[in-house]
Amino acid sequence: MLLVVGSLAYDSVETAHGKVEHALGGSATFFAIASSLFMPTSVVGVVGQDFRHSDLERLQVRGVDTSGVEVANGHTFRWGGVYSKHFESRTTLFTELNVFADFKPKLGPQHGAAEFLFLGNIHPALQLDVLAQCRSGSGSGPRFVGMDTMNFWIAGERATLEKVLAQVDALFVNDEEAFALSGCGNILEAARQIHRMGPTIVVIKRGEHGAFLFHGGQALMLPAVLLDRVVDPTGAGDTFAGGFMGYLASRGTLDSATLQGAMVAGTCAASFAVEDFSVEGIERVALADLTRRQMQLRAGLLSPEVDFGHQQG
Amino acid sequence: MLLVVGSLAYDSVETAHGKVEHALGGSATFFAIASSLFMPTSVVGVVGQDFRHSDLERLQVRGVDTSGVEVANGHTFRWGGVYSKHFESRTTLFTELNVFADFKPKLGPQHGAAEFLFLGNIHPALQLDVLAQCRSGSGSGPRFVGMDTMNFWIAGERATLEKVLAQVDALFVNDEEAFALSGCGNILEAARQIHRMGPTIVVIKRGEHGAFLFHGGQALMLPAVLLDRVVDPTGAGDTFAGGFMGYLASRGTLDSATLQGAMVAGTCAASFAVEDFSVEGIERVALADLTRRQMQLRAGLLSPEVDFGHQQG
Repeated sequence: MLLVVGSLAYDSVETAHGKVEHALGGSATFFAIASSLFMPTSVVGVVGQDFRHSDLERLQVRGVDTSGVEVANGHTFRWGGVYSKHFESRTTLFTELNVFADFKPKLGPQHGAAEFLFLGNIHPALQLDVLAQCRSGSGSGPRFVGMDTMNFWIAGERATLEKVLAQVDALFVNDEEAFALSGCGNILEAARQIHRMGPTIVVIKRGEHGAFLFHGGQALMLPAVLLDRVVDPTGAGDTFAGGFMGYLASRGTLDSATLQGAMVAGTCAASFAVEDFSVEGIERVALADLTRRQMQLRAGLLSPEVDFGHQQG
Repeated sequence: MLLVVGSLAYDSVETAHGKVEHALGGSATFFAIASSLFMPTSVVGVVGQDFRHSDLERLQVRGVDTSGVEVANGHTFRWGGVYSKHFESRTTLFTELNVFADFKPKLGPQHGAAEFLFLGNIHPALQLDVLAQCRSGSGSGPRFVGMDTMNFWIAGERATLEKVLAQVDALFVNDEEAFALSGCGNILEAARQIHRMGPTIVVIKRGEHGAFLFHGGQALMLPAVLLDRVVDPTGAGDTFAGGFMGYLASRGTLDSATLQGAMVAGTCAASFAVEDFSVEGIERVALADLTRRQMQLRAGLLSPEVDFGHQQG
């Protein structure tokens, strides 16, 4: 079983293709919807009393165990943002942490069997606490731990963050975070520096430019799937991590070929996520659709359509 | 034979790794040094009386025919610039067109046999004139024409530029130029729009993020080679085009596999170019080195070093 600890949220997002209000979002949500395509997934998180039961059901119908989602007094975490026309930048309009501000992850006995754990972007002290809870149970603790973080923790909670890094197998960050964490401006050198802090696997997400994997002294740069239309990039990184970790958990091995497969799975999952608002793009994907896109990406046909000859003059 | 028409220049460049002054540069120079690894190349361009004979010899020892390089009264084209620490941006310090301002390309009888032609970034009216000269000779004109351009011509000489585009087989531009030319912010859609203007092949260069090929309704995104150290990116795009066109000319076919090979050749040539100042990185490469890197990139080992295990903690 794969366990993810992170946020469930309601997002209000505007892009050149439209807008949504109070739509299902959050790092654990995107992650679990993607990972559950590959592996039974449990979520530990917190929502407010305003959280729609139908939104929990959207996870449950995919076999996601939501028994670790606490319902607290107050409102669900809300985020609002606007993307520039071609997605070069985004502006946050509001961040209302609400019940997420006091989130103290509590693992239950049902989480003790988690072999794969993903620590979403929460305070590094909470990430440490989750690791301690995982290891205090009757089992031997997770076989494999992945984590996310952000510049806010890199700048403000560095010492605690380094303690987490020393205990995890994989870090998932974007370019900017990798450079801030390592102090390097070269992606290879940044990955090597982060590797020395603990993680044997460093994944650097580069949005429309793809994703970079560093492992065992080797580096792989995988381009993103070329898409006709990007509607909403919110959650792409979490969806990538969900696809990556779900694929790894389903294979159970960590050799180079499996890691490359995980990169392809994460990349393709993210490509579906950005084709619609909220979780709708990744939610409606069947494993067969995902597999087809993975095969195309592997075959070097990096566009989702093999032939769009009707577009030719 | 492959013919390139473009600039020869003296560049003064400063990066985080040092600086050079009045070092050999120019689009035709970078192009020809790369293309001559694959195919005998002729250069048509202009230099001033200050141009060092030894710099012409650097081209000649590679078999490049420099008989089309006119020596005019005045100084050689000079450009000076400074790159930001991690190459996110560059600032032009000076551009002295000098003899290049009055450049009127004159093809000689020795250029009539050119089967492959590359029109470097010059005024579109001059590009049209070169095409006319090529076709007025006794031969049937070039089999394949590639071209470069820039935002200055896209914004200021659009009608003339469109006449050139209608007559060429391949356009090489960067993201920003592709978006400006097409009015689209999506790379696939931009390539389709440009394709409708004439070129059957659209190559969009994305620097450290790789290069994109659009041809026959299919798209390929190839990542760049991951490098330990980038010293000077000046000329990378011209070197890419030289490797691409040289590879194509050496194969003589234009099928999908050959075009993918040309993408790999251009990408690897550019990766050597950026590892040193001026043309020194690409100049010292033997075809065997280039072939080795092409095989590594093809094999999915996107780092030039298969194993840098000594870096592991």
